[in-house]
Amino acid sequence: MGFEDRQLPQQPGLRVRRYRPRESEYAWTFGGVDPVDTVRPGEVLELYTEDCFGGRIRSATDLPAHTIEFPFINPQTGPFYVEGAEPGDTLAVHLIDVSPARDWAVSTSVTLFGALSSTHITATLQDPLPERTWVYRVLESERAVLFQAQDSDFAMRFPLQPFHGTVGVAPAAFEARNVLVPDAFGGNMDSPEVRAGATVYLGVNVPGALFSLGDGHYTMGEGEACGAAVEGAMNTVLTVEVIKGQACEWPRLESDEAIMVAGSCRPLEDAFRISHSQLVRWVAADLGLSLLDAYQLVSQAARSRIANVVDPNYTIVAKVPKRYLPSEVEWMGGAHRRLTRLGSDYLKAVGREPVWAPG
Amino acid sequence: MGFEDRQLPQQPGLRVRRYRPRESEYAWTFGGVDPVDTVRPGEVLELYTEDCFGGRIRSATDLPAHTIEFPFINPQTGPFYVEGAEPGDTLAVHLIDVSPARDWAVSTSVTLFGALSSTHITATLQDPLPERTWVYRVLESERAVLFQAQDSDFAMRFPLQPFHGTVGVAPAAFEARNVLVPDAFGGNMDSPEVRAGATVYLGVNVPGALFSLGDGHYTMGEGEACGAAVEGAMNTVLTVEVIKGQACEWPRLESDEAIMVAGSCRPLEDAFRISHSQLVRWVAADLGLSLLDAYQLVSQAARSRIANVVDPNYTIVAKVPKRYLPSEVEWMGGAHRRLTRLGSDYLKAVGREPVWAPG
Amino acid sequence: MGFEDRQLPQQPGLRVRRYRPRESEYAWTFGGVDPVDTVRPGEVLELYTEDCFGGRIRSATDLPAHTIEFPFINPQTGPFYVEGAEPGDTLAVHLIDVSPARDWAVSTSVTLFGALSSTHITATLQDPLPERTWVYRVLESERAVLFQAQDSDFAMRFPLQPFHGTVGVAPAAFEARNVLVPDAFGGNMDSPEVRAGATVYLGVNVPGALFSLGDGHYTMGEGEACGAAVEGAMNTVLTVEVIKGQACEWPRLESDEAIMVAGSCRPLEDAFRISHSQLVRWVAADLGLSLLDAYQLVSQAARSRIANVVDPNYTIVAKVPKRYLPSEVEWMGGAHRRLTRLGSDYLKAVGREPVWAPG
Amino acid sequence: MGFEDRQLPQQPGLRVRRYRPRESEYAWTFGGVDPVDTVRPGEVLELYTEDCFGGRIRSATDLPAHTIEFPFINPQTGPFYVEGAEPGDTLAVHLIDVSPARDWAVSTSVTLFGALSSTHITATLQDPLPERTWVYRVLESERAVLFQAQDSDFAMRFPLQPFHGTVGVAPAAFEARNVLVPDAFGGNMDSPEVRAGATVYLGVNVPGALFSLGDGHYTMGEGEACGAAVEGAMNTVLTVEVIKGQACEWPRLESDEAIMVAGSCRPLEDAFRISHSQLVRWVAADLGLSLLDAYQLVSQAARSRIANVVDPNYTIVAKVPKRYLPSEVEWMGGAHRRLTRLGSDYLKAVGREPVWAPG
Repeated sequence: MGFEDRQLPQQPGLRVRRYRPRESEYAWTFGGVDPVDTVRPGEVLELYTEDCFGGRIRSATDLPAHTIEFPFINPQTGPFYVEGAEPGDTLAVHLIDVSPARDWAVSTSVTLFGALSSTHITATLQDPLPERTWVYRVLESERAVLFQAQDSDFAMRFPLQPFHGTVGVAPAAFEARNVLVPDAFGGNMDSPEVRAGATVYLGVNVPGALFSLGDGHYTMGEGEACGAAVEGAMNTVLTVEVIKGQACEWPRLESDEAIMVAGSCRPLEDAFRISHSQLVRWVAADLGLSLLDAYQLVSQAARSRIANVVDPNYTIVAKVPKRYLPSEVEWMGGAHRRLTRLGSDYLKAVGREPVWAPG
Repeated sequence: MGFEDRQLPQQPGLRVRRYRPRESEYAWTFGGVDPVDTVRPGEVLELYTEDCFGGRIRSATDLPAHTIEFPFINPQTGPFYVEGAEPGDTLAVHLIDVSPARDWAVSTSVTLFGALSSTHITATLQDPLPERTWVYRVLESERAVLFQAQDSDFAMRFPLQPFHGTVGVAPAAFEARNVLVPDAFGGNMDSPEVRAGATVYLGVNVPGALFSLGDGHYTMGEGEACGAAVEGAMNTVLTVEVIKGQACEWPRLESDEAIMVAGSCRPLEDAFRISHSQLVRWVAADLGLSLLDAYQLVSQAARSRIANVVDPNYTIVAKVPKRYLPSEVEWMGGAHRRLTRLGSDYLKAVGREPVWAPG
Repeated sequence: MGFEDRQLPQQPGLRVRRYRPRESEYAWTFGGVDPVDTVRPGEVLELYTEDCFGGRIRSATDLPAHTIEFPFINPQTGPFYVEGAEPGDTLAVHLIDVSPARDWAVSTSVTLFGALSSTHITATLQDPLPERTWVYRVLESERAVLFQAQDSDFAMRFPLQPFHGTVGVAPAAFEARNVLVPDAFGGNMDSPEVRAGATVYLGVNVPGALFSLGDGHYTMGEGEACGAAVEGAMNTVLTVEVIKGQACEWPRLESDEAIMVAGSCRPLEDAFRISHSQLVRWVAADLGLSLLDAYQLVSQAARSRIANVVDPNYTIVAKVPKRYLPSEVEWMGGAHRRLTRLGSDYLKAVGREPVWAPG
Repeated sequence: MGFEDRQLPQQPGLRVRRYRPRESEYAWTFGGVDPVDTVRPGEVLELYTEDCFGGRIRSATDLPAHTIEFPFINPQTGPFYVEGAEPGDTLAVHLIDVSPARDWAVSTSVTLFGALSSTHITATLQDPLPERTWVYRVLESERAVLFQAQDSDFAMRFPLQPFHGTVGVAPAAFEARNVLVPDAFGGNMDSPEVRAGATVYLGVNVPGALFSLGDGHYTMGEGEACGAAVEGAMNTVLTVEVIKGQACEWPRLESDEAIMVAGSCRPLEDAFRISHSQLVRWVAADLGLSLLDAYQLVSQAARSRIANVVDPNYTIVAKVPKRYLPSEVEWMGGAHRRLTRLGSDYLKAVGREPVWAPG
């Protein structure tokens, strides 16, 4: 374990480094943690991320209440110090590949957690729901995961759609935040948009940005209702760029198909307000539209998504497909285009295609 | 105007009636209004619905504050008394066709309305945003509407996706509710799922159900952020069925692709909780799953959508695609299948295909 | 039963009428109900109001789920047509006396109701809390009610503080609303400020205003956490005045000690926003202060109260004591002062003092 | 500056220490900061706290946007390492005296902050309210502060009611939180109950507890609507005790008159749910009541208060007066009684009485 340089014969110019954290190296907060290493823009990182349970829930009899000790849940790989990243800049993290590292994954219900349960903060006097663990098999050739009910022989395939629930940088204002929290610094947003091919833009608050990621999901329903996706370890390949002198108040995302902003807050309508007002202002600025024209455009063209309704802040991702935007615009200075090209070089060199089942 | 029988030579067995309300016949509440006529299950209604502004906003200089007098906004066509519908039953309303009745439509910003504005209830001391009206052209051959910015020459096509913002029955408990409100009785849910090909299931609260509909939208972004979609009059064709002895607590929807429940409430997370808990219980009951297994299934398979974050109640539509459910299940006793077949007969007879642009 | 004229020998000039509804005469909505009689400003009404359970819960074995059939809960005495009240006016309802009509009262927990329970709209998959009924004895000489625990021999006195949970007029926009709902028309606000000596100002939406009241509480904690106060029938004496040409967007209240506005909404912060922005604007207008100066005054002088966190809308009552306001101001044209004098004449004539235990 | 021992001739047994932070010694987070010194239970601390603006807003022309640089707002005095405090214990902080350190104080409106404004998270597209500063004079002999309107010559006295908006310990889970945040660790709760004579109980998360305090308010309305109280520097005297082996999930408060729990969250109803469910469980445990009996008691006896509706989390303080509880109960092992006696010895020795004007 530790960092290891890799040479890709097909792309000798690419600097590629592999890193799998030791048990003791995972981070449990965004901010307040020393970096595990320094990363240079343009180099490719091959990372291993553990699942949110630290890999300790492996069978139907492993239940969160007995297996997990708070706050050792949702381990993050990192943080990484990015060379040249300064407060006021934006860090672009481009996910080249996000691949299941195991042929199984798990989901659970968790005591006093989840959208359809009272919680420690939506507190009631009722008894909690019982905990359960469902083990999923990965059917890689079918690009599916297999759900098996516990109380009957019902079974069903869901699409293999791997993404990271968590990616973030150190917060502003000297804060250190638990890795279950999504906020302006990113974190546990639980959005399926954080997938291979996407670029996540995060405002830099401290020298080096100190980004980390984790919480791999093999598939997830909109909102993550029960509080857990199909949780699994990941082999993830990414690269970064620093956009100098451009701040980013809330996480922006870009794919080949859309631009997005993630807003995280409670109540859920405030997550909607944050993400959509940020998207309106971004569109207005970059298209030279008036605020009201941009408001109108976003109101009719948004294909926004509920990300999570279970974490300490809820997340909504405001999204406008690029087909409703002028094609010539270079969002965020063209970082996504550049990073996608680099990712494409890497993928060609290793002969891989990221997996993402439709549905 | 008034009701008019139509004979379709190609389908002489189909009872088809056409109705276009007189100016004075529109309804301004759900409940508390006498029916305009009685409808028999199995007959086809060809209806005209006016846009939410009563057709009075037609140019950029027509602004809501001067043109519309509250509560005369969002006129509903109906209500219709459905023969045989009794409290405790469910009314299935199947939309066969939802077609723009004009080649233009409008959207506006409205004083103290919309998700990115303070309102009469999310009350602040700030000045309101100004009102604006955008007139859209319908480009029918391109299956698009044309957005033209007001403060620059920016223009963009959005897909023609006609649906009804509002469909509902008389509420329970002797209530009469304003037509801007979505709630357990349906109403102003503003969900693009209420489109041609969909069946809406509404629990019957009063004899005859007294359903009405309106608020045609030619296209809309997720959440209807500014408070108005691209609003237009509609020619809509529908048919109904009464499901005897089966109540329906919140509006259910079914299409060929998915089953859904609409929950409407504030804050937005409660709309999520309503819709998803109802969907979990529905799936559990109809698939014979335990509650926790159904919770797990919905958590991983939901493709739920934000409908509106602007009305007196916000709406989220919990949705599970049928491809993640056993194909043999007859949801709601098979009403959607039967009504779709009837709709298909009608469409063949009139030689039409409903329009719905992808995207 | 029915209306009955009364002559007070000591105040022959006072027109006094007594009314106790017949079982079939209670109202179950605000709006949508014919008036039981016409009331003239300046006359005194002696009314009987039944408790929220219609008097049917009388012992620990009477539980809501078995005893009450929705929507027959929270019966209202009225509505009364007030002579001269027109839309755009404000109705002032002054409570002269609010007295327990029985020497017992009850409170209950109710399935899926209450602030510390999931509900039909804050919906979870957990089992509901069990229902329980607590019977309270009224200790009139001690101005207390006696709480007796059910699962132990713990007993405690709470202060006798009688008030009406519900008072309201017909809503605007042709609506009829269930009597459990508080909103701009008043209704089920559940505020202890609606007590003897207080004047409630309600904007008139329909000719005659059509006000009604009910839901007597002998005592209640802030927020009505479990969903029920100590519920009891009331003998209530009141009088009304019509303030011509002055509208009132949300219910205002005035006592000898304070001015107040009740805001009802979800989430609870919106109830705070409504009530406080309305109070700021009222203070600004009547004191001739700028909006920002009034905002500052209210921010430092408010003694606002949580009313309910359990009803379909939550209620907060923004309140500024008159000791922080100029003493010479005539709020709402001096209606409270005039009505208090009339009430004082009545009380002298009948030789009564309203009861309100400190605490 | 720095720590300084004091000898009180009248109470030679009392260990008294005085501390006034140097400019560079203030803390800007709870957690993540080294302690300024170690404190022993039973010793008395005489502390100086700066106002939330660091004393830099002193006239009507000093506005937050120009004078304050985020995150250097709300400086905390401390943190103090408490000898013997270990995770799982509870720290009792007893405020003996809270006295204005100046004869003036200020309040402001702040751009995009406050309950009646959109904010960075309740984000709208409207223009923000303008910033204003009001300077208050302290009229000590009248136990009042003097409000002077800016746009007219209106003036009014509000009662001098000094308290600390902020008191807290280091959070759990390795977090460091900005000093504007209230949460389970205490922090910026903005409750007037944190006043002389009160004991605040805070669960200990890290060795030494690391408590700090600040944000002196000379008076404040319920909810702190505009986002700022009448803000002033304080001379505060306190003492602490460690309650071994008893955890405290959320901040509890005790005065001679009441027991309380502060819950902080969004939306505001969740702050209500947290504080009231915690209070119900506390009362049930310490009185030996069943959960439902305790729920009933709290529902009828609560005199709860809105603390803030402006901070990153909103705060409600659930409160039951001791007159509705058995008098013989020793809450939290009797810490408040012991600490009050110690405070009383100190006050006698220095010949002072804490100031708290009624109202």
